[in-house]
Amino acid sequence: MEEITLEAVRAAHHRIRDSVHRTPVLTSSRLNELCGASLYFKCENFQKTGSFKARGAVNAVMSLSDGQASRGVATHSSGNHAAALAWAAGRRGVPAYVVMPRTASRIKIASVERYGGRITFCEPTHKAREEAADLVIRETGATMVHPYNDQRIIAGQGTAALEFLEDTPGLDLLICPVGGGGLLAGTSIVAKSLSPRIKVFGGEPEGAADASLSFRSGSRTPVDKPASIADGLLALVGDLTFPIIQRHVDDIVTVSDAEIAAAMRQLMEVLKIGVEPSGSTSYAVTKDPRIRFSGQRVGIVLSGGNVDFEHLPWAKSGT
Amino acid sequence: MEEITLEAVRAAHHRIRDSVHRTPVLTSSRLNELCGASLYFKCENFQKTGSFKARGAVNAVMSLSDGQASRGVATHSSGNHAAALAWAAGRRGVPAYVVMPRTASRIKIASVERYGGRITFCEPTHKAREEAADLVIRETGATMVHPYNDQRIIAGQGTAALEFLEDTPGLDLLICPVGGGGLLAGTSIVAKSLSPRIKVFGGEPEGAADASLSFRSGSRTPVDKPASIADGLLALVGDLTFPIIQRHVDDIVTVSDAEIAAAMRQLMEVLKIGVEPSGSTSYAVTKDPRIRFSGQRVGIVLSGGNVDFEHLPWAKSGT
Repeated sequence: MEEITLEAVRAAHHRIRDSVHRTPVLTSSRLNELCGASLYFKCENFQKTGSFKARGAVNAVMSLSDGQASRGVATHSSGNHAAALAWAAGRRGVPAYVVMPRTASRIKIASVERYGGRITFCEPTHKAREEAADLVIRETGATMVHPYNDQRIIAGQGTAALEFLEDTPGLDLLICPVGGGGLLAGTSIVAKSLSPRIKVFGGEPEGAADASLSFRSGSRTPVDKPASIADGLLALVGDLTFPIIQRHVDDIVTVSDAEIAAAMRQLMEVLKIGVEPSGSTSYAVTKDPRIRFSGQRVGIVLSGGNVDFEHLPWAKSGT
Repeated sequence: MEEITLEAVRAAHHRIRDSVHRTPVLTSSRLNELCGASLYFKCENFQKTGSFKARGAVNAVMSLSDGQASRGVATHSSGNHAAALAWAAGRRGVPAYVVMPRTASRIKIASVERYGGRITFCEPTHKAREEAADLVIRETGATMVHPYNDQRIIAGQGTAALEFLEDTPGLDLLICPVGGGGLLAGTSIVAKSLSPRIKVFGGEPEGAADASLSFRSGSRTPVDKPASIADGLLALVGDLTFPIIQRHVDDIVTVSDAEIAAAMRQLMEVLKIGVEPSGSTSYAVTKDPRIRFSGQRVGIVLSGGNVDFEHLPWAKSGT
């Protein structure tokens, strides 16, 4: 399979930049004092559809030929990728077929519907989701767009790092959340191509530490029943993303749900921005006492802002 | 008393612009669709100390002579103005004496302390606060800086509108919250000086509708026991701010606490930003069915972001 290069990410950026926001980079003197470092926050919570997933989704949809595109796109992710794909398909005027478990939250269903996605409900098992998606694709001829294990997606997600490094020169360290690994893979390709001395870390929930385990063992290692308030980071790292992460990433750091909730809360209270638990995982990494951040210029990707304000995790965090 | 002019606001901006953020103006296609108008949000929730109060406070502190400044500044406000004044005094290296009622919330006390304010606690009555402030001023020679009924404060608060109109040309309407009236007075001076055709509205909680009553009756009219979740807007409009508001403001619109809470929630869910109830009151005005916003370019000042995440007002809002 062809290697994903900085040039592929640049081509993706050229393809998508009129469709997505060049999100701002925020700083806070108070958070800098707390950390003893210079922190730069890339605000993908302000991105179209509320997360970086808009980048990969629109890159994938715009990469299709007119013939392919006319038959639509499909996915069986139910989170931010599903909403982003529905939105991206809507921009091109083509259908997006989204297979969701019957048990999906009202908020996630409403989000996909808002962007015009055509939902097929299925039983809440991985097998049922794949079968339902296969059936939809056979019936419609739609193109499957996987949430992370797809070169177009990885290149699209890398565009956030491209903007970040252009807008914030001289970073020593770049941290982003890792679930299936699309964002981390794209980020690490860009960072190491543009600046070999920059360190790249992934932040991962303790309760879904498959990427960390895989990184340490050298082979993809699932965990039994992954669980975390960071519900966007439960997927197993992909067989396309993992080799990229192995090659370019310096470490994967795990954080507890309490640490994620405390980080999310501090971002709201001090930066005054809404970042969902998955998106706050990268900031939570900066609280790890084993890592020396002092005096460093640290770039933190806040990957999404779709917060469920009915169920804020403070109670669970003990803060 | 000398009239406050656009030139006074420009001079204030020159004085403070290296100390405060030129806060961003955000837009949202989804909120535009909901309103049928083009909405522009001036994000003073991202301002230093978390509200526009930093502007007036630092203008007041930097307007003092070295001799005056060395004896410090004082106030008996306990909200965002107190934190802003403590911060502004700290920047000049002079003391800020803040009289607060013994019943003030832990969060407000912590905020003033964080910026180095010297707190004197008193009984929670208006008389006790004034007496305690008088005593502090007699003992220290500090300069009283009133939260709104002060020309330096009004000119400082007006700088937010100056930036807003520079960064967002062609606004038809400008809305900001009104409590004591410092922000609304400064805003209206700037708006009507730069663009006589622009309309300026104040947004005020129903439970503290003194500015609205005063505006309609033509004389300052207190309400009995003002109460609202917008706790920064309970003050009676000032005798210095009211004549400016009478002269320059087109209307004062009242909104219920449920409408304020719904507006605050929508700003968090869609714009992904934290805006406190007082700061959300201006956006709540756009939900008033009696006002025709359709097709207009509407500027909305989100005045502060110091949200108490322990006590989000959703339950009270019925949403």
